[in-house]
Amino acid sequence: MSNSLGTYFKVTTFGESHGKAIGCVIDGCPPGVKIEEEYIQKYLDRRKPGRNKYVTSRKEEDKVSFISGVYKGKTTGNPLCLVCYNYNKLSKDYKNIKDIFRPGHADITYLLKYGIRDYKGGGRSSARTTIALVIAGSIARKILKEFFNVKIYSYINSIGKTKISFLSKKIIKGSIFTIPNKKDIRKVKREIRNSVLECDSVGSSIKIVIGGLMPGIGEPLYKKLDMELTKNLIGLNAVKSIAIGNGYKMHRIKGSKSNDQINSRGFLSNKAGGILGGISTGQDIIINIMVKPTPSIYIEQKTICKEYKELKIKTSGRHDPCVGLRAPVITESITSIVIINLIIKQRLNLFF
Amino acid sequence: MSNSLGTYFKVTTFGESHGKAIGCVIDGCPPGVKIEEEYIQKYLDRRKPGRNKYVTSRKEEDKVSFISGVYKGKTTGNPLCLVCYNYNKLSKDYKNIKDIFRPGHADITYLLKYGIRDYKGGGRSSARTTIALVIAGSIARKILKEFFNVKIYSYINSIGKTKISFLSKKIIKGSIFTIPNKKDIRKVKREIRNSVLECDSVGSSIKIVIGGLMPGIGEPLYKKLDMELTKNLIGLNAVKSIAIGNGYKMHRIKGSKSNDQINSRGFLSNKAGGILGGISTGQDIIINIMVKPTPSIYIEQKTICKEYKELKIKTSGRHDPCVGLRAPVITESITSIVIINLIIKQRLNLFF
Amino acid sequence: MSNSLGTYFKVTTFGESHGKAIGCVIDGCPPGVKIEEEYIQKYLDRRKPGRNKYVTSRKEEDKVSFISGVYKGKTTGNPLCLVCYNYNKLSKDYKNIKDIFRPGHADITYLLKYGIRDYKGGGRSSARTTIALVIAGSIARKILKEFFNVKIYSYINSIGKTKISFLSKKIIKGSIFTIPNKKDIRKVKREIRNSVLECDSVGSSIKIVIGGLMPGIGEPLYKKLDMELTKNLIGLNAVKSIAIGNGYKMHRIKGSKSNDQINSRGFLSNKAGGILGGISTGQDIIINIMVKPTPSIYIEQKTICKEYKELKIKTSGRHDPCVGLRAPVITESITSIVIINLIIKQRLNLFF
Amino acid sequence: MSNSLGTYFKVTTFGESHGKAIGCVIDGCPPGVKIEEEYIQKYLDRRKPGRNKYVTSRKEEDKVSFISGVYKGKTTGNPLCLVCYNYNKLSKDYKNIKDIFRPGHADITYLLKYGIRDYKGGGRSSARTTIALVIAGSIARKILKEFFNVKIYSYINSIGKTKISFLSKKIIKGSIFTIPNKKDIRKVKREIRNSVLECDSVGSSIKIVIGGLMPGIGEPLYKKLDMELTKNLIGLNAVKSIAIGNGYKMHRIKGSKSNDQINSRGFLSNKAGGILGGISTGQDIIINIMVKPTPSIYIEQKTICKEYKELKIKTSGRHDPCVGLRAPVITESITSIVIINLIIKQRLNLFF
Repeated sequence: MSNSLGTYFKVTTFGESHGKAIGCVIDGCPPGVKIEEEYIQKYLDRRKPGRNKYVTSRKEEDKVSFISGVYKGKTTGNPLCLVCYNYNKLSKDYKNIKDIFRPGHADITYLLKYGIRDYKGGGRSSARTTIALVIAGSIARKILKEFFNVKIYSYINSIGKTKISFLSKKIIKGSIFTIPNKKDIRKVKREIRNSVLECDSVGSSIKIVIGGLMPGIGEPLYKKLDMELTKNLIGLNAVKSIAIGNGYKMHRIKGSKSNDQINSRGFLSNKAGGILGGISTGQDIIINIMVKPTPSIYIEQKTICKEYKELKIKTSGRHDPCVGLRAPVITESITSIVIINLIIKQRLNLFF
Repeated sequence: MSNSLGTYFKVTTFGESHGKAIGCVIDGCPPGVKIEEEYIQKYLDRRKPGRNKYVTSRKEEDKVSFISGVYKGKTTGNPLCLVCYNYNKLSKDYKNIKDIFRPGHADITYLLKYGIRDYKGGGRSSARTTIALVIAGSIARKILKEFFNVKIYSYINSIGKTKISFLSKKIIKGSIFTIPNKKDIRKVKREIRNSVLECDSVGSSIKIVIGGLMPGIGEPLYKKLDMELTKNLIGLNAVKSIAIGNGYKMHRIKGSKSNDQINSRGFLSNKAGGILGGISTGQDIIINIMVKPTPSIYIEQKTICKEYKELKIKTSGRHDPCVGLRAPVITESITSIVIINLIIKQRLNLFF
Repeated sequence: MSNSLGTYFKVTTFGESHGKAIGCVIDGCPPGVKIEEEYIQKYLDRRKPGRNKYVTSRKEEDKVSFISGVYKGKTTGNPLCLVCYNYNKLSKDYKNIKDIFRPGHADITYLLKYGIRDYKGGGRSSARTTIALVIAGSIARKILKEFFNVKIYSYINSIGKTKISFLSKKIIKGSIFTIPNKKDIRKVKREIRNSVLECDSVGSSIKIVIGGLMPGIGEPLYKKLDMELTKNLIGLNAVKSIAIGNGYKMHRIKGSKSNDQINSRGFLSNKAGGILGGISTGQDIIINIMVKPTPSIYIEQKTICKEYKELKIKTSGRHDPCVGLRAPVITESITSIVIINLIIKQRLNLFF
Repeated sequence: MSNSLGTYFKVTTFGESHGKAIGCVIDGCPPGVKIEEEYIQKYLDRRKPGRNKYVTSRKEEDKVSFISGVYKGKTTGNPLCLVCYNYNKLSKDYKNIKDIFRPGHADITYLLKYGIRDYKGGGRSSARTTIALVIAGSIARKILKEFFNVKIYSYINSIGKTKISFLSKKIIKGSIFTIPNKKDIRKVKREIRNSVLECDSVGSSIKIVIGGLMPGIGEPLYKKLDMELTKNLIGLNAVKSIAIGNGYKMHRIKGSKSNDQINSRGFLSNKAGGILGGISTGQDIIINIMVKPTPSIYIEQKTICKEYKELKIKTSGRHDPCVGLRAPVITESITSIVIINLIIKQRLNLFF
């Protein structure tokens, strides 16, 4: 009963990491949107592991196919059902941990919640379920761009202690790392290589930018723009903290330094991240998220098994040394779903 | 259409800052809960301004009264309607700013959203609407404590650059400042006095702790415990950033430093803030929020009026030098409403 | 948790028959609608008992007052809160039945559901709660008429075995009986007088007509126009059956007699009641509801008390001999709330 | 956005009559329910056309398969996705009507609503979409029976002017006609054969009985048991009227004849259909629905085409002479989904 997100462009997801398929039903997609499988595939490919040696070497096909709601390449207004069948299910990779709780993972809380343990790739707690969000997000993003000229992008802001400087939006597109700066790629590779050598993993931060959003988006109470964004972005596996605009510093400074003053051409700065009172100002919306290091590491850690016996665990199998590297396309997808819902809401406000 | 929060213990709020009353309807409160107006009043009084010279000198009565749902001091299961009539409406305080956009305020975005300007105390964007949350939260908190032994408290963690050290929960209760440490009160007073002397305001951070929460609370996807908490806490006026547990540092460290290892007596640390995979672990839930400085300052700032003419504004009227000081009881109320909803959800999961 | 109706123009009601007040919060009412208390009062007065000797002699003031959402006689877009305080609470009228289950009443099912008995006028099961629907419906009706030229009316179609012939919409307005025919008023009075003389009560049927509704209203599945109307009208106390258009005969006839044929000027008949596939055709929408006789009668009936002891009950107190007589304004109010929600939904469909 | 039904056991359907598949996602199904495809198939087979010469001769495979939410033959608590691929899509059957509005069909209202015409079997307006309800309903029905001992059955009450007398529940099971009486089958066959000979179709009525439902089910307002049942049953294609218990006669009789009196062993009659004040009494719940004749008939009827030119239409293709004959399993499925949702709701009420 908590498998849907969005109210008007409503995405209901289904599927388990090691089940038959992962997919979603989208209810509320307008008719007449031109959507082809190849278009969605592009975004799924950005998410896909196995693209280079800095991400997990698991091979996943992740090919999307339409079940309903599309006729001759266009949406009909009927509910869209889209699925990705699972082909590469190495459940045996997980057998040796089937009774053990991995530190930093949801194994223990899922068992405590449901009384059952689905050890095969984490079931619904697996980040593989974000495939459904990338599918739905790619459609939302298309509508945002074509109907409203809203463009969403994101980039890695830091890896461990390495800060990355923003240079140009162009490089983001070309880079498999989603890093806005050719020069810093070398630094990033070094940081990751080092943590791999140490059998460890490393955290990261991601900046998300919504460009071209009209002012007035976001509801005054309980459905503010920052509420909806924060909620859904912190929902992404491994995200543990979030800030709107310069939010990380706001508590340490004075009012005279935190306000964005205004002149006849607009705001003189954007410390508020483009949001005032939960409503967009017409500036770029800026959000920063902090991603924890992959909890699966190749160093021995203390833990217990289902029978409460103490033991040591050392991860085997294939895992990303830095989960943040694959996160940008997912954060953009989530953001697209949030924004399209709030834009529809605002049009509803202006009805009469 | 965005005036409700909660799904099972559902709070719908109404009322404007300078209207007849502020109140709420609670749908889904169980029958048989003993609630008296005096009990709720205690929490409203903690929120009330005018209690000492460090908060705004506005006098607000904020007396709650029941309209429905209570019979002989107990809830009946019918919808509760509770209101607080507004007595001290100095709308003239706001007349001189009726065409001017105050930097850092929602004046401009509300106008851009609705095409109308309600200058009298901010209408629904005013923090006075949190009265409704304190009312509903005080009832949620009572149920949490009596039925589930869950206890929620919070304290000021820092004011501007002054960090406050945690000493004991006892002092929190007695202090008008919600500060866990007698010794630090002097430092806090000095920090605020200084910003008042500079005609400025100052930011702050607040730590919220949920004690006694059973494991298993929070849904696996789209209604995770951290999603629901961050969403609703960032919705509070002036909150611009949020972190779960040690979330502010997670992106800079390695996996071996961020995981909480486990032994047979439980977790060896609580860096995750008591949440794994969006579900409570049984430890204390720990959330940090960053509150920006009051945007209303007595220093001249650049702005424009409705006709786009540039001018300078210097706040008059009565404003808190540090909005964070009055926020703790509100953050606890919001947290209570979130938690009671998720506990009900979990009981629903375990139905059969 | 089931105290709201409508999704976009959302009405949450509160209050008990013998409590402090009955009222509602409307979330989603557009801004700029001119609403005065006198306007709403007109509809409350149509519902009010005590207007003539054919309805209950209880005197109820039922004066509406605004709590929020209206400024200078116009809605602001903020949630509207409206209440009617209860003045004439003769709870003692109900004392003698406080442990007895009245046949045909919800006394027994409420006790079985909640384990508690609110004998004072039925609590939330009382038809007095429809005051909230009349208040909200009168605002919905105004928007429907002014923005969309949709007009809703209803009339008594039959009382007991007396059928009433439709003559003109004009007479409906003037008549305290909501009967479309001066001539038949005498017959109706006789039918009611007879049932009063027999210490009995009598059933009735009501026809509701929605005029001017544009085609295309109603969703294809699970939110069809007939689904929403039927659901909400059968929810009115004492309604036990409902038919769309000629629905009562449809099961006995052949397809060649039940289809509405079409020519270039439109449909040649309206047996379908203006709805095909759950969507409005542009014709008048026609619904018939059947209302059971008032269950409170002055004849002895067998029943039991809370301790399962058998006894006989003979109603005392003040009751309508024919509840249908006061129902028309309520059915129109419910219909107005349903229709405004579906019109908004359809505009949402056509967004892009 | 109107493709879901149910709140707790929430069914979201997708798929078009002539698309790739028809299916549903069920969110909120409890874990541990033993479900096999064969079990569901049994109910789909009862719905399937082509079983005898009295229903349409279209052959449809309608084989269900699981996509997610089931592991080793048991539900996991994760969302269930189930689909039925479409194999027998004779879209050419519909080509000749692609610009013509069939009387009694939703062709014209769908075009008026959406501005597009999906002539291939009616798209989402097709009764084929009820496949999804039969799938979800069969699971709901299993839970109702195994966990709560609630049993739902239905039977044809009348065909055209032929009334069918109730004899025994046993015969219902065996009969392909869902008729409670061997003797009447001959009469029914004759009635249908006659209408086929006349190139016409015929209406019918169906009685639905919910046995074993505990008292207390149904919410006091806006989610009453009768509201939820009538809404969802009238949503079934061709249903135009509905009555609770003896509802069709209630408006013509006196209170002394319509009340169900009570003695220490329970109610002395069940005219109210087992519902008082929207809440179940513990008796059988009885609902009657009236189904109109199939609108597709082989007699010439007046109609127009998209260009408003007048013409005559005579149905070709394969159609049921009496749609009611295939309806019982669908009405039982819908009823099962409604009841499971209200039972969960009631358990939620009794939480604390």
